[in-house]
Amino acid sequence: MLKTPDLEHIFHPRSVAVVGGSRELIGMASYFIEELINGNFKGEIYPVNRNKTEVMGLKSYKNIRDIPGPVDYVIVAIPAKYVPALMRDCAAKKVKACSIFTAGFGELGTDEGRRLEQEIAETAKEGGVRVIGPNCMGVYCPSSGLCLGTNLPRRSGHLGLVLQSGGNAIYLSRVAPMRGAPISKAVSYGNACDVDESDLLEYFAQDDETRVIGAYIEGVKDGRRFRESLTKVAQAKPTILIKGGRTKAGAATAASHTGSLAGSMSAWASLARQAGVVQVNSMDELIDLALLFLYMSPPKGRRVAMVGVGGGLSVLASDIFSLEHLWLPQLSDAVKNQLQELTPSVGHIYTNPVDTTAMFFGADTLTKSIKAIDAWDEIDMLALQLGYDFLDAYPLSIRETLVDSMVEAVKAVSKPSLMILHCVFSPEAYQTYFRDQQTCWEAGLPAFPSLQRAARALNRFISYHEEKASSSA
Amino acid sequence: MLKTPDLEHIFHPRSVAVVGGSRELIGMASYFIEELINGNFKGEIYPVNRNKTEVMGLKSYKNIRDIPGPVDYVIVAIPAKYVPALMRDCAAKKVKACSIFTAGFGELGTDEGRRLEQEIAETAKEGGVRVIGPNCMGVYCPSSGLCLGTNLPRRSGHLGLVLQSGGNAIYLSRVAPMRGAPISKAVSYGNACDVDESDLLEYFAQDDETRVIGAYIEGVKDGRRFRESLTKVAQAKPTILIKGGRTKAGAATAASHTGSLAGSMSAWASLARQAGVVQVNSMDELIDLALLFLYMSPPKGRRVAMVGVGGGLSVLASDIFSLEHLWLPQLSDAVKNQLQELTPSVGHIYTNPVDTTAMFFGADTLTKSIKAIDAWDEIDMLALQLGYDFLDAYPLSIRETLVDSMVEAVKAVSKPSLMILHCVFSPEAYQTYFRDQQTCWEAGLPAFPSLQRAARALNRFISYHEEKASSSA
Repeated sequence: MLKTPDLEHIFHPRSVAVVGGSRELIGMASYFIEELINGNFKGEIYPVNRNKTEVMGLKSYKNIRDIPGPVDYVIVAIPAKYVPALMRDCAAKKVKACSIFTAGFGELGTDEGRRLEQEIAETAKEGGVRVIGPNCMGVYCPSSGLCLGTNLPRRSGHLGLVLQSGGNAIYLSRVAPMRGAPISKAVSYGNACDVDESDLLEYFAQDDETRVIGAYIEGVKDGRRFRESLTKVAQAKPTILIKGGRTKAGAATAASHTGSLAGSMSAWASLARQAGVVQVNSMDELIDLALLFLYMSPPKGRRVAMVGVGGGLSVLASDIFSLEHLWLPQLSDAVKNQLQELTPSVGHIYTNPVDTTAMFFGADTLTKSIKAIDAWDEIDMLALQLGYDFLDAYPLSIRETLVDSMVEAVKAVSKPSLMILHCVFSPEAYQTYFRDQQTCWEAGLPAFPSLQRAARALNRFISYHEEKASSSA
Repeated sequence: MLKTPDLEHIFHPRSVAVVGGSRELIGMASYFIEELINGNFKGEIYPVNRNKTEVMGLKSYKNIRDIPGPVDYVIVAIPAKYVPALMRDCAAKKVKACSIFTAGFGELGTDEGRRLEQEIAETAKEGGVRVIGPNCMGVYCPSSGLCLGTNLPRRSGHLGLVLQSGGNAIYLSRVAPMRGAPISKAVSYGNACDVDESDLLEYFAQDDETRVIGAYIEGVKDGRRFRESLTKVAQAKPTILIKGGRTKAGAATAASHTGSLAGSMSAWASLARQAGVVQVNSMDELIDLALLFLYMSPPKGRRVAMVGVGGGLSVLASDIFSLEHLWLPQLSDAVKNQLQELTPSVGHIYTNPVDTTAMFFGADTLTKSIKAIDAWDEIDMLALQLGYDFLDAYPLSIRETLVDSMVEAVKAVSKPSLMILHCVFSPEAYQTYFRDQQTCWEAGLPAFPSLQRAARALNRFISYHEEKASSSA
């Protein structure tokens, strides 16, 4: 049984103080305040600033201890040398938690940096203040209106993110929702002087809002605890891991980025395998996997029927899927005949991938064609594909309804299905692409931007379920 | 010495006849005619159609033999069964070459399909007519106004393409120019009943417009000639190859796609290696490589300095580049100190990748910073990077000039350089992205859409030059 870490104040504070002036750190404090206002944060917002009496229409205080009401959470964006004193003020004010944006601590690799970081950790601990960071972007929680000081989607979802890096936190929090995986909570935790990856993973394991967990970790300080946490968490929910600093060069960068000892590549791969965690190499791969966990039920095998337009891709599609251990069986004569009857076309050869003209015959014919393929018992899943390069030759009226027809047709399908929207080549095509992508995930169909990305994610998704089945057998 | 294949009529015909009715094959004939008009084809255009006397304002003929003037080139878009008779008419009319869009020949795998294909090949040969196809899109040659029946860029460039698949021809002809690699000539040659991959490769090897050659090949009929051609061609110009149907499943699809015998994966890999050809797996990789060959001089080694904004990516950047055998050395103290002096920033750590704030200090400071990095003798090339996700927090005035400043700064650089424009996440960001991408290649800087794509292409580009150097040593 997982212990619920006492981190609720971090995600649902009743009030937030933002400490920092606009003259320091490129004025990050004002970004944090602006985004709390824009994000409809329901509690009190208190600017704390030595030089101003008002910030963005809010009364500003010289010291956190001057604030009249209780302060649950503090966002810290002042130079490093002032942070220890602020921690003492936070303890005096009985602040529950804070996140420290400021850099210039342990990650500097200097004695002074390490000493400062240790001092804030100890002061906070004595005063009962939980600390996220330093050297981090903090907390994004759309349901309570917390954000990372940058303009992020307001919509709440089911992907929980534990991220050592602020840049990754911003990228994932911005891009995953556009692909159909809005965030439940994301935490950029930087140097982890108090709250660490294990605390956060365990929180997400029991968080009702979170169905899938993604983590970007450069290094851990307590390896034994991390191994235990990761194993428990991965049993509770699908967990996807990016290990930053896996290579020698990456590890050297990680040391100066968040002061992490990175550990060897093989050690992490073996840890991930034993814990039942899916390890990926990039943020986009993390999102790809999350989409499958959120939207697709596990296929019974690795046989794929691919259906769509863009015949030139068909041979490469077979190659690309084969390289990820996914098979496109040759169409049976029965299915071929059914497709020929539905869309008679001189000289057209029906193969798998099915280069179907059915979608130009209207939604009804397309639905019948796709149902015929779905009923074919030699496949385990359907991959629909649409190449935007190919569409330029067709009238706008056809282009604009193609994905609608495909999504409508997939509703009649019984097997796990996904969409590949690819070969997007111009700003105009991207307009359609983003709308079509949203149409897909609103209908529960995960969409991928290339054959490679879809195949790679599918391979890992199926392996995850295969291993889960064999370990429980 | 390469023999110049007699294919000039294919690319520079004085007149073109387009044979086909709007009721057959989804009216492809009318697309071909429309695009010849739009592409400003300078010679005569003759529609040939049993049912009409005028097509798009042009006089239409019932038979190709009724056309009064000479006909150099014929585009064929009539059902397969009528093609042999048309070939006899073409021979009688002394047509120089034709491309046959029509499918339904050898690729069907039927005796009838093979017999028809053989008949057109023999008739054409006897009559002195060169044939491209059947089952192909034909010829795209922007300098003469020929296109593939679909709306392609009019601008001519230096990438020559030999493509068995029509879908790939359209994708590459549309996308490569947007990335800075406009096409000299592209030929989709389908079943290759007469003009084949070897003819076309040899033509491109001596074609003055073509500096880099890309090929997509599913299978060849004359393996010995192909090996000889490929070797000679790769000695003349950088040649990039995609082998379609490398896997067992892909080969099965290739057989029905263009009637090709695909050959084993290892046989093709060894052929490519011996011939000095760069083998890639996808069309986007082909474009990535072509950009390096067109724009970048070969680096002296594999050490990279990366400079840009988006700190969270830095650790992953080192990892991703290391996995492609590219090294990001740690910054020397001298370079660190120079950067610190140029852009003093409390708590900022200068590492490689260099997360520089210099670009927010104006073009002059950025140029000085980049010059300092360029002068560092432990690196062989510069990779500039800009993450669009990160930019959302900045005012439009900064966002819109960032790439301009970066491109301006790179002009002072002596080492080979490239740009990575990535983390694009919205239709709006793509507007900026496409403009920025064009700014880059117009300034001679190749741009890549992800760290992975840049690293992968660089690795192959450098390997190509390493192997060339060692084989000539």
